[in-house]
Amino acid sequence: MTRVIRLLALSVGLPGVLLLSPSVGGSVSIEDPLPSWNDGASKTAIVRFVEEVATEGGPHFVPVEQRIAVFDNDGTLWSEKPAYFQLLFMVDRIKALAPEHQEWQDQQPFKAVLEDDVEALAASGEEGLLQLIYASSAGMTTDEFAGAVEEWIATARHARFDRPYADLVYRPMLELLAYLQSRGFKTFIVSGGGIGFMRPWVERVYGIPAEQVVGSSIKTEFRLHNGRPVLVRLPEVDFVCDKAGKPVGIHKFIGRRPIAAFGNSDGDLQMLQWTAAGDGPRLMVLVHHTDGEREWAYDRESRVGRLDKALTEAEARGWTVVDMKQDWVRVFAFEAN
Amino acid sequence: MTRVIRLLALSVGLPGVLLLSPSVGGSVSIEDPLPSWNDGASKTAIVRFVEEVATEGGPHFVPVEQRIAVFDNDGTLWSEKPAYFQLLFMVDRIKALAPEHQEWQDQQPFKAVLEDDVEALAASGEEGLLQLIYASSAGMTTDEFAGAVEEWIATARHARFDRPYADLVYRPMLELLAYLQSRGFKTFIVSGGGIGFMRPWVERVYGIPAEQVVGSSIKTEFRLHNGRPVLVRLPEVDFVCDKAGKPVGIHKFIGRRPIAAFGNSDGDLQMLQWTAAGDGPRLMVLVHHTDGEREWAYDRESRVGRLDKALTEAEARGWTVVDMKQDWVRVFAFEAN
Repeated sequence: MTRVIRLLALSVGLPGVLLLSPSVGGSVSIEDPLPSWNDGASKTAIVRFVEEVATEGGPHFVPVEQRIAVFDNDGTLWSEKPAYFQLLFMVDRIKALAPEHQEWQDQQPFKAVLEDDVEALAASGEEGLLQLIYASSAGMTTDEFAGAVEEWIATARHARFDRPYADLVYRPMLELLAYLQSRGFKTFIVSGGGIGFMRPWVERVYGIPAEQVVGSSIKTEFRLHNGRPVLVRLPEVDFVCDKAGKPVGIHKFIGRRPIAAFGNSDGDLQMLQWTAAGDGPRLMVLVHHTDGEREWAYDRESRVGRLDKALTEAEARGWTVVDMKQDWVRVFAFEAN
Repeated sequence: MTRVIRLLALSVGLPGVLLLSPSVGGSVSIEDPLPSWNDGASKTAIVRFVEEVATEGGPHFVPVEQRIAVFDNDGTLWSEKPAYFQLLFMVDRIKALAPEHQEWQDQQPFKAVLEDDVEALAASGEEGLLQLIYASSAGMTTDEFAGAVEEWIATARHARFDRPYADLVYRPMLELLAYLQSRGFKTFIVSGGGIGFMRPWVERVYGIPAEQVVGSSIKTEFRLHNGRPVLVRLPEVDFVCDKAGKPVGIHKFIGRRPIAAFGNSDGDLQMLQWTAAGDGPRLMVLVHHTDGEREWAYDRESRVGRLDKALTEAEARGWTVVDMKQDWVRVFAFEAN
């Protein structure tokens, strides 16, 4: 329970009541583990699955070491508009380096960064993100890069909400992470975002330790700087953890097939397919962004976080599709209760 | 404690008494956590380090989430003679496939395999190992490969001892793993061996779960076979987790710097350097193979598991060098007590 308690202590405003002991017979306890979720099909499907796999002696029991749950990050655990937050992090770094790179004036995605053209930046996608990452961080040590990320997360603010980016994590998903952890699940992030961008802050914000983060990466090299060992970031992609890369990343980093997977876009489809194809109880969930008022509303036509093929497949196969507007009492922890 | 209890239950012959609660003031408890270790400098250094970092309020206390310990596998947790056991696993597979590959008759490392030339096979090293891996397993799904590994581990026998290979794990190191886990350490394998070769059996044998295994890997590809998702092994190296690749692998897979590292050869030197370069308490340990009677004796001149530069550096920097003959009451669990 250490993880849950720490998460509770650190996330001011999270509900204080959590299930701390398994319920009996697979039924739902009186204490609600998901108070930011409205009653409905999504909440019922989630709670039923979790209670069933955690009920020893029950027909759907799953041993604790197999209770692996994977979560996409952007759009699933926190917002991804107007662009992936990691792209916005890169903006400051690119701007600072621009005077030394005149060629960036006419070259995407750098041109978009320098002209504050957020749409063009978003359109550059994962590939643009990786270009920005290694253009702006190659030659840094891994420790230096982590420090830059930490500083940004502590100081930068989201334009629409005028709040730190880590305030834009979804409170219902924090409750879900804590609930799963209280039921013996090991929770992993499996994101197209950079592994080095997520690890410095995800433990504090999500209660997910650095070693349970799977993501895209660039290559690093071990060097001795004046006898002191460092790892230097190279301008070379190591792994892209998106689409068909997600099951590959799960196999590479975790080595077990998850029994539950949570995503929000077509980039998560193969992760959900891979999870669904295992034996025994399975839970596949898509977060559908339907709330333009409290967050954003987008799906089949969106450039960032497009949800099209995966939505069709979810509907055909009976996967759980969370309707943010209908299913969530609140989206962010900072909303009035 | 679940992990420790499971390990105890599964490892017949392990001592039943373990420290289950932190001792007070950094002193060693009356119950010996390492009964297969003789009293001496090595045992003292290990126990002192572990007790100090686990003692809350003490001057060397390390928060539990930072208690990361990494272990090389071949030669550190189990034997590696006459050749890496993974090479011996490949022998059967290569021989079975040889009729379809006439070119192997004159091509190393295949020629060595077909002629039972163990020395030549060992001399082919990590590179030869990887060639054999992908020559013999490319096109298999990851599940098929795991099944082949499980069958071999269950049935193949080591020639010298006429026992299953998993019997050649070092009992003192099993005690050390359980002791570290009882003190809140998260224990990882960081091996030059194949990640897909280790994961099927390390949880049962070492109490280390699949997701805490870092190793060399070949690339895999996500495909749909008649609508069913599979991961197929490709004939292409993804990552070599040896020498300078070990800190790279630690950063990539774990994302935290270990505070304790255990190895036995020059392939582990950079992992120990990387561990030593962090702040706060550190423990760097080399297992020195000095016992030709109970196991094997080799170091600076050995082709497999050469310990030369790392031994020199350990002596210069005061790292702990375990003398198997002197420091270990027994090497294997099957020895008479």
